[in-house]
Order: sequence, then structure tokens, then C-alpha cells
Amino acid sequence: MLRVILVEPEGEYNVGFIARLCKNFCVDELYIVNPKCDLKESLKFSAKGYDILNNAIIVNNFDDAIKGLSIKIATSSIADYEGDILRKSIKSWEINDIISKADKVGLIFGRESVGLTREEISKCDFLLHIPANPEYPVLNLSHAVGIVLYEIWKTKGKIRKKYVSYNELLLIDKYTNILYNLIKKTNGDYSLYLAMKRALFKGVEDDEDAKIIVSFLRKLYNKITHDEKE
Amino acid sequence: MLRVILVEPEGEYNVGFIARLCKNFCVDELYIVNPKCDLKESLKFSAKGYDILNNAIIVNNFDDAIKGLSIKIATSSIADYEGDILRKSIKSWEINDIISKADKVGLIFGRESVGLTREEISKCDFLLHIPANPEYPVLNLSHAVGIVLYEIWKTKGKIRKKYVSYNELLLIDKYTNILYNLIKKTNGDYSLYLAMKRALFKGVEDDEDAKIIVSFLRKLYNKITHDEKE
Repeated sequence: MLRVILVEPEGEYNVGFIARLCKNFCVDELYIVNPKCDLKESLKFSAKGYDILNNAIIVNNFDDAIKGLSIKIATSSIADYEGDILRKSIKSWEINDIISKADKVGLIFGRESVGLTREEISKCDFLLHIPANPEYPVLNLSHAVGIVLYEIWKTKGKIRKKYVSYNELLLIDKYTNILYNLIKKTNGDYSLYLAMKRALFKGVEDDEDAKIIVSFLRKLYNKITHDEKE
Repeated sequence: MLRVILVEPEGEYNVGFIARLCKNFCVDELYIVNPKCDLKESLKFSAKGYDILNNAIIVNNFDDAIKGLSIKIATSSIADYEGDILRKSIKSWEINDIISKADKVGLIFGRESVGLTREEISKCDFLLHIPANPEYPVLNLSHAVGIVLYEIWKTKGKIRKKYVSYNELLLIDKYTNILYNLIKKTNGDYSLYLAMKRALFKGVEDDEDAKIIVSFLRKLYNKITHDEKE
């Protein structure tokens, strides 16, 4: 279960965009602590996240928002000052290592103007930071939310790797070799064949791709041998 | 060099937020094709990305925006319909494998309402897609930009991978296209060209590789046209 918590958000558009992102990345719950903006205005920016925002749970204080969570992750663009353990951070891409073991995860995002207070951060288990340009690492609120939700979604929804079957690879190899034999000089430069085969083996993504590439190679062969049998 | 290209953006806030993200993630150039919103309004949302937006290059047509790029990556929330090679996508987390070899990379984002046209996508080398909730995968424009820039930023700093120069990629493209034109039927199946070019762009590792592959393709061309000049 994944809960997004916004603490005293100030921008209508940010809250709306975040509701939309919650829908894009399958967040279970949206909590808003003491909103400082007009949530009716926010609905205009929520697109198909409308219901999520409409059903958001509005609470008056921070403690009510984090109740019942097994892991609470605060977020900040200010992190990693030497000697300040509270602001020692995990990086956004490390989040899955941490939440994979938890059943109820809360992501807590602070005010656009001043972020989370030290007291709020201290009530959480981790501080998460999104690395960016050291000269200007401060992301807009909803864009920070989007990136963190995306990182979590990535490993959730990771689809099986694409796949090229043995037979298709054999055919790519076969036709590359045939073409190589047609163009090589007497003392053929074998690296011609090798480089082409390797590039195609590396670049081909799946069987659909492979079949088209084989077709390309076969058509070249037919063109050269004037033997358009296909 | 990284260039972000917005094609006919419609939302003031999106353009402003994107300028801010360009600053957050050290983008080199922002191009805007034929903006459909008031860029002066956008400046209000750009925070410290103000200068980037102020210096954005505004062009009238798509071709001017992609000029000089060695790898052009279109983006879409609509991807991967079986049989539609043009909409076959790389995932957002795969982008670094592809751009690490290029010196001038363009990321192209379409209109909020209808995205990029098929013609625009076909002028690019890859289509990138951010996986999300299958029921509602459509991210707001600026949030999509943020996620892609974040992915690229994440691996910046990592050791520079091998490198393929612009000219070699152009030559691979050129000869693939020439060969395609020699073998296509009257109503050519464009996916033949697309699949072959994409596989070679993905598979080629460095200039040494690239030169050999170009040589392979050129020899095939000479063989077909019986014009063995080399």
C-alpha cells in the first residue's frame, strides 16, 4: 500500500498535478495536511486523477497523516550536510530497496516554500533526496512527486525483458554471412562480417524486429543475385 | 549536448516548468516549435529556469528544430501496438544506453492535446515511452519531461561510454536508406528501413564499429549497382 502525503501545499496546480500522477502510477491513498490552497481549483489540473483528489483525506495535523504506516519517507531538496544525520539522505533510485520489504509505505512531501520542518522529518524513517544540478537542485513539488512515483512504478511494473528467439538470430547470422561472402575480396576482411553481425545481435529487440531485419537482408541478397523468388 | 524540443506546446505552466527542469537537470538547449501559448506567462512558472526560457530558440517548423542532432528521440504516451514499428518504443530507463554513444541528442516532446504526428515521429531515430498505469498512462507534459531528464541525469557522471560520431551515424542512416530504396516494392514498407536503422544505431558501439558497418553497407550498394569504384 502506497500513500502520498502533502504537507500544507500552497499551489493549486501542484496538488492537481499530483492527483493525476497518483493515478498515472497507481498510488493507493492521497492525504493532504492542512492545505494552503483552494482544492476546488486544484481539480482543474487533475485530469483523470479527479477522483483521487476528490477522495483525498484532509487532516489537520502531520501525526494523523502518518498514522498506520510501516515506513515513512520524508523528502527534501536539502540534504547531506556533513554532520547533520537528520538530513542524511537516500537517493531516489534507492527507494525500492527500502520499501520492498514494507506493507504500508508513506511518501511525505513538504511545502513548496520551505519544505518539511526538522520536527516533521524526525518523525519519519528516511529522508529521500532527488539528485540534480548542484547549482539549482530544487525541483518543483509535483515534479519531485512524479519522479519518486516513477521510480517506484519502474520496478513494480517492470515487464519481462524483450526476447529474440534462437531461430531469428540464426537467420540474421546466416544472411549477414551470405551477404558478406558476396562482397568480400579474395582475402576477405572477416571483421566486416563480425561487426555487422554483432551490431545487429545487440540492436535487435524482439522477434518482430528480427523478422523485419531478416527480410531486409534477404531482399538485399535477392537483389544481388537477381533471384527474386520471395 | 542535450537539446529539449517542445513542439507546439499549449500550456503556459508546462513550458515554464520545463524551463525550470532544464535548469535542474543541466539541459544545454531549449527549442520551441511554433508555441501555442504565451511564453511571457510561462516565465512566471520558470523559477530559476527563467534565463533558459528567455534564451529558448523559437522556430517555425519541426525540421529547423532537429537540425544538427546526431540522435533524435521522439516521445509518446502511445506506444507498442503490435505491427506498428513506428510506435515501437524504448523505455525511459533504456535511454542512457542509446544516448551515451551520441554527441548531440535531441529529446522531442509533442503537444499536450495530440502529441507528435506520425510524420514527426518518423523523422526521429527512436520513440521513447514512459511506462505507467495501463488504465491511464498519459502523463502531463512537463512531468514526462522531468522523468526523462532525471533518467539522463542519473547516469551522467558515470564513466563515459564508447562513442559514435555524428558523421558515422549519418552514414549508417544514409546507406540503410539507399539500400532500402533499392529493395522496396512500389508501396515500400517503411518499417523495413526503420527496424534496420534502429537496430544498427542501437547495436553499434563506437566509430571503429561504425566505419566497418558503413563499409559493409556501401559494398552491398556497390554490388547491387555494379559500381565497384572503391
